[in-house]
Order: sequence, then structure tokens, then C-alpha cells
Amino acid sequence: MVRQARSEATRRRIIDSAVDLINEIGYPASGLADIIERAELTKGALYYHFESKEAVATAIIEEGKDTILGAFRAAGRPSSPAIENIVHGLFVVAETIMADGVAQASCRLLRTFGGFNPTAKAAYGVLRHELAEGVTSAVEQGDLRSDVDAEAVVATVLASTLGAELVSSALADGRDLRRRFALNLEILLPAIVTEQSLGYYREFLARQSMRISPSKP
Amino acid sequence: MVRQARSEATRRRIIDSAVDLINEIGYPASGLADIIERAELTKGALYYHFESKEAVATAIIEEGKDTILGAFRAAGRPSSPAIENIVHGLFVVAETIMADGVAQASCRLLRTFGGFNPTAKAAYGVLRHELAEGVTSAVEQGDLRSDVDAEAVVATVLASTLGAELVSSALADGRDLRRRFALNLEILLPAIVTEQSLGYYREFLARQSMRISPSKP
Repeated sequence: MVRQARSEATRRRIIDSAVDLINEIGYPASGLADIIERAELTKGALYYHFESKEAVATAIIEEGKDTILGAFRAAGRPSSPAIENIVHGLFVVAETIMADGVAQASCRLLRTFGGFNPTAKAAYGVLRHELAEGVTSAVEQGDLRSDVDAEAVVATVLASTLGAELVSSALADGRDLRRRFALNLEILLPAIVTEQSLGYYREFLARQSMRISPSKP
Repeated sequence: MVRQARSEATRRRIIDSAVDLINEIGYPASGLADIIERAELTKGALYYHFESKEAVATAIIEEGKDTILGAFRAAGRPSSPAIENIVHGLFVVAETIMADGVAQASCRLLRTFGGFNPTAKAAYGVLRHELAEGVTSAVEQGDLRSDVDAEAVVATVLASTLGAELVSSALADGRDLRRRFALNLEILLPAIVTEQSLGYYREFLARQSMRISPSKP
């Protein structure tokens, strides 16, 4: 048991070192040698846990995806309408990405690998599916406009969310992520929800956006 | 002159080989050795033109960004309304990314480097600026709803476009890019343009979408 705990601690140190480097200088510039040096380990110790740099990346994608999905799900309440859960869930995801290094690095790696890494590809599928479930519930709850296609809603919310993460990361090192999510939703809500529900969700969005304090841009 | 032409041809061969590899197996898996082998050149020939793998990537980002921006601009007509130029321009960009290897690889590299590479970061700024100019014209032409914030429109169109490219690349190897752009615009147009103009732009979008023939999904 002691040996297993030590082995797990070593694996953790490798992942944490890689996460720090990826968030500081990006994945392409983070070499295996840099990860080993940062983790203060030997090459052998690293190769015992991971067969390649991509294997480390895959572990980070997997863990980060679980963290992000877990945060989104935990933000939702079964008693709340699905649109509210989606809006609140997106803001919680923004906070998670800003606060959690593994989640942040996993976003960078997802963008880097896209369809070339099976774990990354599967993660995009899972995120899409999660959003599609929320939109289906919103349709059942009568909150979606009758003239919009649910598939188009899922595709647009997913694209605008992932694109906002990308732009925020590229232009502001991820610091304005919540604000970018708020801008997306400000445009998308009127296109998606019914006239009757719009006032309620707009106010809900305004309250969520207000939590974006100037000290934490 | 002969020597300069030969040197230019070598540089071209390096870029084209790197582009092919990046589109086939992704940037992380494309090593400098692979690029040299594919280009049938020596290490010395490559280092004469590029000091590192990232320098090759930077050249591809620069060239691809120019191609994409050039295609978007060439698609616009000064006599056409700005919204029409944006919609048509996005479909032309989708076709360009699907048909032009350098443009496609540059999208992958932009996502990979984001804010870590000055050329990539600047490219995002240029794309944002181009879109902002179109939206400003649309406001002047009275096509934008009076209750929407132009900055939010720019941010959402940019995010949904970049996100669609990312999702299309990850889940369908970029083959459904035009369809994803069409789904975005189907949701975004009613949120952005005035009631009076909506019918016209919806029909314009439908005509553009129809060009998405089933044989070229």
C-alpha cells in the first residue's frame, strides 16, 4: 500500500508539472525533459507511468474533462429549468477553467489534439451530448422557441462556448472568460427561448453576470 | 536569381511537407525529422530556412491567415450590405479551409498556439477586427437590431465561427464545416438583424446553405 501511494504521488507530480508548463508556455514548447526537470524526477520514473508526452496529455485531458463536466453537472438542480441550469452551468465552468490548472490545461490540449487523439475526440462528443440533453429538456419544458431547430441550438451554443474559451485564452490569457460567456448568452438567449420566458432568463443572466466583479475580470 | 528561386522552392517544399503532416497526423506528432524526410531534404537545408519547428508553424499561420482573410475580403462587394458580405464571406472561408491545406493547417496551429505565439495572437486580433468592421457597417446600414450591443455581436459571431471550426475538425475532420456555419447563422441572424431585414437575410442564408451539396457534406 505504501508503494502504491508513492507511485500515485509520483504520477500526480508528473501531471501537475506538465499542467504548470502547459499553462505557462503552451504544450508545443513543453518538452518531456522540461516536465521531468520540473517534477524533479528521472526519465525512468516518468516512463514508468507514461509512455510518451502524448500519454501525459491524454491523462490531463481525461482528468480535466471530468472536472469540467462534474462542475457543469453539480451546478444544475433537478428542480430548476434546463435553460437556467445551462446558463448557470456555463458560468461555473468558466470559473472552474480559470481556477483549476488541470481543467485549463485540458482545454488547451483539447484544442491542440482535436480529432487526432481518441480521448480528446471522445471528450468533444461527451460535451456535445451533455448540452444536447439540456436542450432536449428545455424543449420538453416549453422554453425553446417553436421556430428554432434544437440541433442548431446545440451546435451554436457548443461552438460559441468553445470559441469563447479559445479567444479568451489567445487574447486575454483566459481572464475574460466569464465575460465572453455572458456576451454569447446575451445574443443567444433571445434567439433560443420563448417570448414569455425571455424576461426571466435575461434577469437570471444579468444576476450571473453581476458576479463578474471588476477585481476578478 | 536562379539560386534565389531554388531557395524559395526549398522553403516551399518544407512548408508543404509540414502542412501535409499537420493535416494528416496533427502538429504534436509531426516532428522536424518527419518534415525533413517528407520534404526529402537535409537537416541543414531546413535549418537554413527555419530555426525551429515553431518557426515553420509560424510561417504556416502567417500564410494561412492571409489566405483566409483574403478569401473573406474578396467575397465581399462594396455595393452589398455588410451582413450579406459577412454571411457570404463565412461560407467562402469554410470552402477555403476545406480546400486549401495551408489554410486548414493554420487553423489547427492557431488553436494549438493561441496566445503563446505572437503571430497566432495577432491573427486572432486581425480576424476580430475584420468582423468588427463588418458589424460597424451593418449598424450604419440600419440592419442591426437596436437592442443588441455591437460588441456582443462581434464576440458571439467570432466565438461561434472559431468554435464551429474546432468542433468540425475534431468530430468530422472538417468535412461538415459549411453546415456548422449554416447552423450558427440560422440561430444568430434572428438575434442580430432587424425584423424588416430578417426575411431577406434568411433567404440569402438559405441560398448559401443550398450550395452545400450532399456530395460535398
